[in-house]
Amino acid sequence: MKEYNLYCTGCSHKESINKNISRCPKCDEPMEVELIKEGKIKYSKDKGQTILERYLDFFPYLDISRKDSLGEGFTPLTNLKSISNNLNLKGLYLKNESQNPTWSFKDRGTLLGILHGKKLGYKKIGTVSTGNMAPSVAAYAAKFKLESYIFVKDTIAEEKLNPILIYNPKLFKVKGDYGSLYYNTLELGEKKDIYFINSDVPLRVEGSKTIAFEICEQLNFEMPDYVIVPTSAGGNIRGIEKGFREFKEVGIINKVPKIICAQSAGCSPIDKVFSENKEKIERFENPSTIAHAIENPLPPSGNQVLRMLKRNGGFTASVEDDEIIDAQKDLAQNGLFLQPASCVPLAALKKLRQEEKIEKYSTVVIIGTGGGLKYTKVFEKYNFNYSQIDLDDIENID
Amino acid sequence: MKEYNLYCTGCSHKESINKNISRCPKCDEPMEVELIKEGKIKYSKDKGQTILERYLDFFPYLDISRKDSLGEGFTPLTNLKSISNNLNLKGLYLKNESQNPTWSFKDRGTLLGILHGKKLGYKKIGTVSTGNMAPSVAAYAAKFKLESYIFVKDTIAEEKLNPILIYNPKLFKVKGDYGSLYYNTLELGEKKDIYFINSDVPLRVEGSKTIAFEICEQLNFEMPDYVIVPTSAGGNIRGIEKGFREFKEVGIINKVPKIICAQSAGCSPIDKVFSENKEKIERFENPSTIAHAIENPLPPSGNQVLRMLKRNGGFTASVEDDEIIDAQKDLAQNGLFLQPASCVPLAALKKLRQEEKIEKYSTVVIIGTGGGLKYTKVFEKYNFNYSQIDLDDIENID
Repeated sequence: MKEYNLYCTGCSHKESINKNISRCPKCDEPMEVELIKEGKIKYSKDKGQTILERYLDFFPYLDISRKDSLGEGFTPLTNLKSISNNLNLKGLYLKNESQNPTWSFKDRGTLLGILHGKKLGYKKIGTVSTGNMAPSVAAYAAKFKLESYIFVKDTIAEEKLNPILIYNPKLFKVKGDYGSLYYNTLELGEKKDIYFINSDVPLRVEGSKTIAFEICEQLNFEMPDYVIVPTSAGGNIRGIEKGFREFKEVGIINKVPKIICAQSAGCSPIDKVFSENKEKIERFENPSTIAHAIENPLPPSGNQVLRMLKRNGGFTASVEDDEIIDAQKDLAQNGLFLQPASCVPLAALKKLRQEEKIEKYSTVVIIGTGGGLKYTKVFEKYNFNYSQIDLDDIENID
Repeated sequence: MKEYNLYCTGCSHKESINKNISRCPKCDEPMEVELIKEGKIKYSKDKGQTILERYLDFFPYLDISRKDSLGEGFTPLTNLKSISNNLNLKGLYLKNESQNPTWSFKDRGTLLGILHGKKLGYKKIGTVSTGNMAPSVAAYAAKFKLESYIFVKDTIAEEKLNPILIYNPKLFKVKGDYGSLYYNTLELGEKKDIYFINSDVPLRVEGSKTIAFEICEQLNFEMPDYVIVPTSAGGNIRGIEKGFREFKEVGIINKVPKIICAQSAGCSPIDKVFSENKEKIERFENPSTIAHAIENPLPPSGNQVLRMLKRNGGFTASVEDDEIIDAQKDLAQNGLFLQPASCVPLAALKKLRQEEKIEKYSTVVIIGTGGGLKYTKVFEKYNFNYSQIDLDDIENID
């Protein structure tokens, strides 16, 4: 069997897969697992089959067992027929990642990171998170009986803390620059033997591949024209693109969709430098957006996302908070309640259709990364009404 | 093809399946769809297959289409190995219904109710809910572009309102007896042409069958000894039992597990009369429990649950709020964060093992009905700790 190792996305420097190295020691760009060259989907009648069992060939460097699963993945791809019609598209589908164990896509990569960390002998895991990653890492750490170290911004919405703490991690609210915190934890990890499963470490990127694999299957291998991904650090969009590329490499599909990096205008470092035709990411000053889950002003995979988009033929877009809220309403009117970050792709799609950057009769998949209950502060933006009545008056309602 | 109709669970009176009748016009007991006598699982490689497509034979009286799905069902059955070992069981599994479109099991029955209502020509749907059912009905109504009428208790936790209102229903907070409200809405429905998908209407009970079907498949048809269901109105436990019975009837499995009705001691009308060997449900006075989602003092399916348990050989249990919180902690320590009502089965299991009412080396499935983020007020019962640090001090953490 071919051996797969880590390589640097910037300078191609190689390292063993059996090391915990997320940044290149030579050029500091993100490391990545090499492209899988052969593999098949393991079809099964077995309803207990996990995603890692189904796509086993695409993770040949790990020890995979069903007992390690919390039921991550196999999320629905929901047909948004009425929005599709309104936007003059051929098809529009939402990959609903809110139906994961901790209600976001992060669970996919968290499991892989832990399996890798365990294989390398780590007893402690950690993460730096603005929201979704923290409960995911804390939950899987609990499942695996590992100690977890969770670092969050001191400006984190108060409501997000308890749903992390329920899993009993060591939690630290950190005052200081969030972009720097990422690098500080990598140093801390080395010093204290903590395996940090941050936003774009190689194994988390590998987890996001499974989103692409499932989309291919759910569309019966008829590839969409565009896949729009809400983007923060850049790990998820890299993983999704890699997943499509691997399925093409092994001959399961014959086309990789164009990937669109969608950001909030209030924190859009990738969209900004892409629009300016630059090749290096720059810090986005004074970020402020309702889409907190994708508020990273200096994305550690920023340069690699720029390179990936160039190779892929994809592009970027950014949208205002008002447009995000409108998209959240649109989705709720189709029965789906997602967190603001997850509504960015639909907001971007509406804009890109208006600007004709996405052609009519296209087929589009938007990625809904996490559930609406994760950030209820957003309700302040709404003006809901309801009636209060007595039981006796129930006959008189309109 | 055999025709299936409605029959009364109390007096066997029959009605057409093409009517919206949830209580027997003769004896007022709940109506139910007749037991399906033949059917197979429709195995498919297709990852877009929905639960209703897979179990199509068990819903022969409806028009089923993939486009109507929000991705309900196919939830994980998670192995709780360490708790199983602690309790001296052979196996313990949690059916995690928090991975549904509105993060509770209710979505299964809501979809079936709407399909039935649509077939009968209804343009409006409604429900009476303490929590999970309201967002579910509002979400699916939005998906189907139907008007929805949602009735909630005036004592509903404030945090539960906005996650219903996001789907834009007509919402009514009603002052008065919750048990009566159920009956009032049935009258209202007739008068105003609203199809009420309340907690134990025949089509909602049918939805819960799919929970049992999936468990059978996920356990590779090796039947557990016990299935423990948190119980309020009684619709879900009836549906789950019916699902097992139908799979046995058609020859897919050869044993129906013993069903255990688990309630909170603060509102345990079924457990109370069952323990007293009575055959008729009685109103539970002054209900008060942290498990709001199962706080129904006069369960409309109470009598039928008693009859079902007798036929099945199952029994009841009730647990205190403290035990519920302990179970919530236990589950979180295995990576699962569920709402208090969903932790009642584990609390009951611990008690029943202690009392030896469940034998050692048994295999048990517990039903986790909804996600933890639905009721965050429970955090008041916890005493969480975390640290606040400066970025520069990160090296000095323990």
